[in-house]
Amino acid sequence: MTDAIVRITRTTICGTDLHILKGDVPTCLPGRVLGHEGVGVVEEVGAAVSSFAPGDHVLVSCITSCGRCEPCRRGLYSHCADGGWILGNTIDGTQAEFVRIPHADTSLYRIPAGADEDALVMLSDILPTGFECGVLNGKVAPGGSVAIIGAGPIGLATLLTAQFYSPAQIIMVDLDDNRLAVAQRFGATHVINSADGNAAKEIFAITDGRGVDTAIEAVGVPATFELCTEIVAPGGIVANIGVHGAKADLHLERLWSQNIAITTRLVDTAATPMLLRTVMAKRLDPTLLITHRFALADIREAYDVFGRAAETKALKVLIEA
Amino acid sequence: MTDAIVRITRTTICGTDLHILKGDVPTCLPGRVLGHEGVGVVEEVGAAVSSFAPGDHVLVSCITSCGRCEPCRRGLYSHCADGGWILGNTIDGTQAEFVRIPHADTSLYRIPAGADEDALVMLSDILPTGFECGVLNGKVAPGGSVAIIGAGPIGLATLLTAQFYSPAQIIMVDLDDNRLAVAQRFGATHVINSADGNAAKEIFAITDGRGVDTAIEAVGVPATFELCTEIVAPGGIVANIGVHGAKADLHLERLWSQNIAITTRLVDTAATPMLLRTVMAKRLDPTLLITHRFALADIREAYDVFGRAAETKALKVLIEA
Amino acid sequence: MTDAIVRITRTTICGTDLHILKGDVPTCLPGRVLGHEGVGVVEEVGAAVSSFAPGDHVLVSCITSCGRCEPCRRGLYSHCADGGWILGNTIDGTQAEFVRIPHADTSLYRIPAGADEDALVMLSDILPTGFECGVLNGKVAPGGSVAIIGAGPIGLATLLTAQFYSPAQIIMVDLDDNRLAVAQRFGATHVINSADGNAAKEIFAITDGRGVDTAIEAVGVPATFELCTEIVAPGGIVANIGVHGAKADLHLERLWSQNIAITTRLVDTAATPMLLRTVMAKRLDPTLLITHRFALADIREAYDVFGRAAETKALKVLIEA
Amino acid sequence: MTDAIVRITRTTICGTDLHILKGDVPTCLPGRVLGHEGVGVVEEVGAAVSSFAPGDHVLVSCITSCGRCEPCRRGLYSHCADGGWILGNTIDGTQAEFVRIPHADTSLYRIPAGADEDALVMLSDILPTGFECGVLNGKVAPGGSVAIIGAGPIGLATLLTAQFYSPAQIIMVDLDDNRLAVAQRFGATHVINSADGNAAKEIFAITDGRGVDTAIEAVGVPATFELCTEIVAPGGIVANIGVHGAKADLHLERLWSQNIAITTRLVDTAATPMLLRTVMAKRLDPTLLITHRFALADIREAYDVFGRAAETKALKVLIEA
Repeated sequence: MTDAIVRITRTTICGTDLHILKGDVPTCLPGRVLGHEGVGVVEEVGAAVSSFAPGDHVLVSCITSCGRCEPCRRGLYSHCADGGWILGNTIDGTQAEFVRIPHADTSLYRIPAGADEDALVMLSDILPTGFECGVLNGKVAPGGSVAIIGAGPIGLATLLTAQFYSPAQIIMVDLDDNRLAVAQRFGATHVINSADGNAAKEIFAITDGRGVDTAIEAVGVPATFELCTEIVAPGGIVANIGVHGAKADLHLERLWSQNIAITTRLVDTAATPMLLRTVMAKRLDPTLLITHRFALADIREAYDVFGRAAETKALKVLIEA
Repeated sequence: MTDAIVRITRTTICGTDLHILKGDVPTCLPGRVLGHEGVGVVEEVGAAVSSFAPGDHVLVSCITSCGRCEPCRRGLYSHCADGGWILGNTIDGTQAEFVRIPHADTSLYRIPAGADEDALVMLSDILPTGFECGVLNGKVAPGGSVAIIGAGPIGLATLLTAQFYSPAQIIMVDLDDNRLAVAQRFGATHVINSADGNAAKEIFAITDGRGVDTAIEAVGVPATFELCTEIVAPGGIVANIGVHGAKADLHLERLWSQNIAITTRLVDTAATPMLLRTVMAKRLDPTLLITHRFALADIREAYDVFGRAAETKALKVLIEA
Repeated sequence: MTDAIVRITRTTICGTDLHILKGDVPTCLPGRVLGHEGVGVVEEVGAAVSSFAPGDHVLVSCITSCGRCEPCRRGLYSHCADGGWILGNTIDGTQAEFVRIPHADTSLYRIPAGADEDALVMLSDILPTGFECGVLNGKVAPGGSVAIIGAGPIGLATLLTAQFYSPAQIIMVDLDDNRLAVAQRFGATHVINSADGNAAKEIFAITDGRGVDTAIEAVGVPATFELCTEIVAPGGIVANIGVHGAKADLHLERLWSQNIAITTRLVDTAATPMLLRTVMAKRLDPTLLITHRFALADIREAYDVFGRAAETKALKVLIEA
Repeated sequence: MTDAIVRITRTTICGTDLHILKGDVPTCLPGRVLGHEGVGVVEEVGAAVSSFAPGDHVLVSCITSCGRCEPCRRGLYSHCADGGWILGNTIDGTQAEFVRIPHADTSLYRIPAGADEDALVMLSDILPTGFECGVLNGKVAPGGSVAIIGAGPIGLATLLTAQFYSPAQIIMVDLDDNRLAVAQRFGATHVINSADGNAAKEIFAITDGRGVDTAIEAVGVPATFELCTEIVAPGGIVANIGVHGAKADLHLERLWSQNIAITTRLVDTAATPMLLRTVMAKRLDPTLLITHRFALADIREAYDVFGRAAETKALKVLIEA
């Protein structure tokens, strides 16, 4: 009754979709239609949907939220009692011609006339994730110093949105020189290839021995998380974005007196309306992240190109239906 | 030139002093006069001291701060470039007839006329530590739920100051039934003896399966820290107070999506003026923490009683000079 | 479709209802059933209501919110695009046997088993209003100083909830000695009868010449608002609660350099779930505000008693159906 | 003993200096050397100054702060018990060859090697004022809407620093088309000449009838302040920067229910270290504000040009010694 059927016009593939294919996401059962990102046109709405009507152009949020439960009332949509990340996980997703969106009134966003809908596909997940989990949780601030560990799509999305707050230094760390070159083009003030194991040393050199105000983990393995806890300055924040499959060591014997905070977050997409406004105002260009385009019919090829990103230099692949 | 000499009239012993005696604090060399807590009377001031004069009754802060460096200007006095925790550590401390206090203008607090100076000894370290590292960092709030792991002096100081914010539930966890009985007297709404390994289970039962908004670690070992990360609700905070000697496991494979924060902090004593006001206004009674009294001449006996706390039921021991 | 019909079991009268009767609220047309406070039992729900079922005991919020519009998603329920304060104003209210509540899922609160439903009537409006508009906006804090101008029901509700934050001083100002005596019983640390025009002078004496950190306006006339701007200390806040009918003078020629904030707010009732928890945890006793009881059939008498409050010493009158 | 003597190398003239000449600042007595902005070289330091030595290049803050008093410990340097705005007001100022700076350790900032010292003169007062009183107090945020009333030097400094936070809309309002053209060059998204009395109407048109999230008053007269309270959206902030000579009308009969905040502030210069970092990182170019240059010997001419700004198109005049 609160559902909408959306005809998908554009979708994309997320790193999480690759994890699902490898069997890393036990909640997602075989046969599921993947995909939690996309834009489209409303085809049909349930009787209780009041904000949308057939023909409306909409952005699909990767997070479904009922808007009524206690977590939703606190803005913690990721932990909605009747939603959260379910799309392309426990219910069928957006890599299809049509998708059914529960709680449509609070899980879709109207697309303003004249918007670049390619750009908006990046607002389903990757940009709110980089912004909320990395930039907001990391309290990036004017004149501050930021290190982002990982220059994949999510690290680069974080880099783009970190610039909303004009930090003095944004240091990108990765093992892939191509991605570091992209990072520099996207506004990083320093890039470090961490292959030689000297990333921490270089970051302390850049920050006059202080460490960074904000260290953002955008990979999802213990080593990169531990690097973040090593380089954060007293009074600073480690903001985790990465999806982890294993525990990390937390060196409390050193950190207990360092006055730091460590945050984790599954994206709430509470920032989506704000991001929409920044895109419309041309303060943010999400299309920078799009490297390849495919038709929906060629989605297997899209998965192949996206899966071999080191080789193909793919960031986000746009899939048009 | 910025120093003051203070004649100590009352001091006390901190758990950290016991750690020093065991050799756990390498910065503190043999021969050092211990003690970083106390009240006294100013005997003499350096030429650059403008806020105090001989005869003034003062509270000694455990943190020395210059008030000028970049951390001090941000309120991060614990990381003062020319101070921090140095008293009874890298310079001689307060368990003596006289103590020299560097940066006196910004490291001492004037005691208002009529104050109970016994009570104020608790404001040198233990109450600001419980309040800043536990209550403030843990964002304790009206109607919220709090678990404090550890009902020793610092856990109890946290319990007293947590009540400034009227949480609905304050759950104290310890292995010592005597301390839990004290906790109940001090205002805990629930107490749990964790000897049977069921603390987490009981906390979920108390909180309708949600976990707590704030989990405060007041012991300093991996197991209690890990318990905190287990019982914290989505959107909640783990606030570490304990001094740790070893790393802990951080289960990011579960926590990455839980929207939590973990904080660490060496006390800044930025809250000391506020705590002084609450004591003067009778909103807080720090003397509840004082279980024993000794003359300075009997300080060895005081250390003995404090060191056998499980047996002697000692919380804080007041030492009068 | 999102409506619920609630059988009212208890309601009350608000000062605003008296304003309506005098013709001060032009949006409220003749013939309207008044009342925006109450508790009751759900009789019937629309097809799109998912959180409530017939027989549920519920608290009615004075603010109707759709939970979907941009203001609602920001927690600004008072400015809901399809709600706000409409009950007993632009739609029929709670001083009746039955009331229709639009957007029931997000405008009603489930009453926990065992709750004192008399107490909860105070959570429809008066306690969230005092708490949100006065205490939260005024950033009442441990050890701080607060002046509340006006010791009527709303000022007293503010006094009760201000104590959630343990301020050192709570100064109540009124012209009515009876109300000041009540204030003292409710926890005020100082009371001032302002009839002699010396309130500001006395407040500066109490605060050592500094003025107060938080000045709360709970009357709604220019003189009391201007008093607040006179007594607020540099760095402090003036939090307006009062419903005003005329402009006030803002002395910017003095205030421009005083680093103050002035806030206004129509209650959002975002704090209602938290207040419910504090009542259930016995941290707050709203029944203190109830001075008289009437049957619904005698509501005219209730209005009479409430309208002659100076004489009858009425605070809140409980009306049982 | 805490003083430093600074040889001034560059200074400038503030609008406040013109007010003093007109007799509007009663604390400033005849014979006073004016000027509270400038950079220079330390010539001599008192015995208690520990952070600076002769030869150091320094930035003079317009606010003198002792760093020890209660307001200073809260970051409220503008209300320092032994400082505040005294330079060129109650003690001799910077429009001279030498100036004596009290509390030098906490009232001067070291200039990094390689800095553009012309640019830094703008950091004594105008940029921290625009940033702290307008941008920070106004909570300018990514994607938000901002109106700045007044495009004089202080309004333009606010415009430059508002862009640290990437608002979607920055609307500048003034009566002078030249200044509005400058504003557009500096990054305003919309400019409005308010001569026709339609500014409010145009602002509502730009913001789809909502009004602005942040309205910044940068003139200092009742009409512009009242315009701010008219155009602010529910949930928004009016941040006053202007120095006012008269009271304004505050229409509480409309504003009481609008959930707004109004802030006032004398600059604290707490943001100066951050602004220094943004200038060094080339995120901010303060030299944009400099329109004219004079030798110190020609300061009368500088006053004349600055005083006839409408005609000379002067923003800030740099005076070199």
